[in-house]
Amino acid sequence: MRDVRTVSQHRAVIAALLPPTPVREHTLVDAVGLVLAKDLRSPIPLPPFDNSAMDGYAVRAREVANATPEHPIRLPVAEDIPAGRTDTPTLRPGTAHRIMTGAPMPPGADAIVPVEHTDGRIVDVRINRPAEPGAHLRRAGEDMPAGTLALPAGTILGAAQLGLAAAIGYATVPVRRRPYVLILSTGSELVKPGRPLRHGQIYESNGAMLAAAVIEAGGRAEQPRSVPDDVDELLETVRLQVSSAEAGVDLLLTSGGVSAGAYEVVKDALASRGVEFVKVAMQPGGPQGAGRLAGFGAAGLPTVTLPGNPVSALVSFEVFVRPALRAAMGYPHPDRPVRRLPLGETLRSPAGKRQFRRGILDTASGTVRAVGSPGSHLLSALARASCFIVLDEDNTEHQAGEETEVWLLDR
Amino acid sequence: MRDVRTVSQHRAVIAALLPPTPVREHTLVDAVGLVLAKDLRSPIPLPPFDNSAMDGYAVRAREVANATPEHPIRLPVAEDIPAGRTDTPTLRPGTAHRIMTGAPMPPGADAIVPVEHTDGRIVDVRINRPAEPGAHLRRAGEDMPAGTLALPAGTILGAAQLGLAAAIGYATVPVRRRPYVLILSTGSELVKPGRPLRHGQIYESNGAMLAAAVIEAGGRAEQPRSVPDDVDELLETVRLQVSSAEAGVDLLLTSGGVSAGAYEVVKDALASRGVEFVKVAMQPGGPQGAGRLAGFGAAGLPTVTLPGNPVSALVSFEVFVRPALRAAMGYPHPDRPVRRLPLGETLRSPAGKRQFRRGILDTASGTVRAVGSPGSHLLSALARASCFIVLDEDNTEHQAGEETEVWLLDR
Repeated sequence: MRDVRTVSQHRAVIAALLPPTPVREHTLVDAVGLVLAKDLRSPIPLPPFDNSAMDGYAVRAREVANATPEHPIRLPVAEDIPAGRTDTPTLRPGTAHRIMTGAPMPPGADAIVPVEHTDGRIVDVRINRPAEPGAHLRRAGEDMPAGTLALPAGTILGAAQLGLAAAIGYATVPVRRRPYVLILSTGSELVKPGRPLRHGQIYESNGAMLAAAVIEAGGRAEQPRSVPDDVDELLETVRLQVSSAEAGVDLLLTSGGVSAGAYEVVKDALASRGVEFVKVAMQPGGPQGAGRLAGFGAAGLPTVTLPGNPVSALVSFEVFVRPALRAAMGYPHPDRPVRRLPLGETLRSPAGKRQFRRGILDTASGTVRAVGSPGSHLLSALARASCFIVLDEDNTEHQAGEETEVWLLDR
Repeated sequence: MRDVRTVSQHRAVIAALLPPTPVREHTLVDAVGLVLAKDLRSPIPLPPFDNSAMDGYAVRAREVANATPEHPIRLPVAEDIPAGRTDTPTLRPGTAHRIMTGAPMPPGADAIVPVEHTDGRIVDVRINRPAEPGAHLRRAGEDMPAGTLALPAGTILGAAQLGLAAAIGYATVPVRRRPYVLILSTGSELVKPGRPLRHGQIYESNGAMLAAAVIEAGGRAEQPRSVPDDVDELLETVRLQVSSAEAGVDLLLTSGGVSAGAYEVVKDALASRGVEFVKVAMQPGGPQGAGRLAGFGAAGLPTVTLPGNPVSALVSFEVFVRPALRAAMGYPHPDRPVRRLPLGETLRSPAGKRQFRRGILDTASGTVRAVGSPGSHLLSALARASCFIVLDEDNTEHQAGEETEVWLLDR
C-alpha cells in the first residue's frame, strides 16, 4: 500500500521544492505585478526642493499684504522661472519672479500669487489679492523626507508603487524573478489541437491550460510539449528542454501517467530517479508525485507530476503548485482569496477525502452552488466555475445553508 | 473661457477615440487574460468517443453479474487497450479486454470492471465483483455534444477556458489584440531615474507609472520617453516613435504641459493639430486634452493628454483611459469594481467638482478612509491606496457613515 498523504502534507512537500527565486534588478516596466524583494528607502526628500504649486508669481507676502482689485500692487518682474530652471536667482525686495508649477522657489520669496490673482503681465505685474506666507508652496520633503521607507519589501508593484520608485530615483527595482516552469503532457492518445483526430485520440489540452495557469500565477511558461507513453522519449525531451532553457528551469510540471494503470509513463520514468508517487486524500487529484529529478545538477530538478484528467490537473495545480510558485516569488498572500459562504444546495462528498467542487457564486443570495458533477473529465463546468467549493474530509453530507470554505478564482 | 466638461462627457470623448482593436488569432498561451472575440463552438463531442473512466477490464455486464470474491468469474483477456490505441477490436462474448483510463470502449462491451475488483492478470482475469451496465464509462458527448457553444464571445480567457478551447481542437483563438500605447512625459525639469539631480530638477516618474498602468489594464507599453518643453522636439519624437512602432500605435498618451501656464508644450504643440484642450469638473485632473493628432493617417492619431502632476495623471488614467482601453479589448466589465461603502470619517470636497480621493478600505469595519490630503503631488499616499473614494460634485461635505462610491484598485 502506498503512502496516503493529507492535502496539507502534500502542499508542504511541494512548497519545500520551490525556494524563493533569485532577486534580480528589473526595469520598472518589467517589474509590473512582481513583488519588491528589499526595502526601498528614499535617498532624496520628495519633493526634492521647495517649489510652486501654481503658475503665478513668487513674492514676499508682506509686500502684497494690502493688494486689492481696486488698489493692486505693482511689482517689476525680475526673473522668469519655468520648471526645470536649475539656477536659483534670489528674489530682491520690491520685485516678483514669474514662476511655473513645479519650478523651484527663489530664495527670499515666501509665497506664490496665482496668475488668476494678477494681470498676468511679464515685465511688471499688478497683483490684486494678498497672499499668506507659504501660500501655494510645496515644501521639500512634505511628501516624504529623505531616508523614509518608501516601499517595504513585500510590496506588490503596481502603477502607483512604480511611479513612487521612479520619483525617488530608482531606474530598476529588486524583485524575485518569475519562475520558469517546463510543462510536459504525457499520453499516446494526445494530438496537438488543430490536427485531425482518429478514433481513440483526444486533443492535448492540459499543456495550454497549465501554461496559462502558470502565467496567471506570475510565472513563465512557453508553448507546452507533449510526449507519448514512452519512458525514453519522456526523459530525452526533459533533458533537451532543460539544456535549451536559457535561464534554467525552476520546475518541471508534468500531467498524466501517475496512477495505477499498466502504462504510467511518468511514474515509470521518474520513480527510480528521485520523484515520489503518492496518494493524496482528495478528490479529484488523488494520484500525485513530487520530488527532485536526479541527473540535473547536485540538488536535482524540482518536479511535480499532476494527474492527467484535465479537471484533476487544474485542481491539483491550484491546490499545490500555484501557492508554491507565488510564495517563491514573495507574494505576501500566495493563496487564492478564501471565504466562508453558505451552500446554496446540499452536496455529498466521499468519506476521508477533501473534495474540491467547481462552483459558481450567487452574488444576489451570497451562496455558492456546484457547477457540473464531481467528474474529473468535465471541462465545460470547469470553464464556467468562478470558485472552488472545498468539502472537508470529515463529513460526507454538506447541508444547504452550511458555511463552507470557498476559493475565489480570477474571472 | 474654455469649455468645462463633466467627467462623463470627457469619458465619452475618450471612449470614442478608441475603437475595438482588431481581432487576431492568438496561440492559447498568448491569449491568457484576453477576451474571446467570437463564439467558439465545439466541432466535436467531448469526450470524442465512449471511453473508460478507470484502469480495468471492458466486459459484457451480464457475463459478470454473479461475480463474488468467493466465486470470481474467469475470463480470457483477448486484447490490451492502452489509451491512444486507434483501432477498436470488438469484444467477443466470453472474453474481457484489459483497458486503461481514457482508452476507447470496444464495441460489444457495456461496462468497465476496475482493476481493484479483479486479480489484475493479463492473460486471463478473475473478476470478483459484478458491474452495472454503463459502469465507469464516459459517454461520447457527455461533457458537451458536437456543436455546443463552448465559449461565448466576451469570455475572459483563463486557464480553464483555454484548456476547454484546446480540448475541442483549437490551436488558436480569436481575440482583440492588446492596444499599443505610446507614452510621452513632458517637462524640462525631468531627469531619468538613476542619474544625478540638480536643484530644480525632479525624477521622471509619470512614464513608468503610466506604462505600468497600461500593462495592468492589458495593453502594451514600452520603456517610456520624455521630452523637454520644446514643441519641435515633442513633435519629432512622436513622429519617430510612431514610424518605428512595428504594429502601429493605438494611442498617444502624454503627461504634463496642458494647464494654463506660459510653457505648456503639449498644448502648444497639439492644440492646432486636432487635439482639444478642456477643463473637466474634477479634482485632481482638471486640465485635460483629447483628440486625433493630424498628420498620422487619414483619421489622425488618437491622443489623450493627461496633466503632469503624478496623482492627477494616474487618477485621470483610471477615470478616462483605463476603461476605454479595456472596452477596446472587449472586456465585458471595463471599469474597476465599484462599491457603495460608508465613509469612516467626514470629508470635504470643492463645490462643482467630482473629487477622487485616495482611500484605504478598512475590511474590519467595512468603511473607507482617505489616505493623505487631496494634494495632487503626494505620491506616497497614492502608493498606499487600495481604492479611490469618489466624492460627488453636488456636496462639499460628506459625513462619516454616509455611503459613497468607491473604486477598488488591484493590490
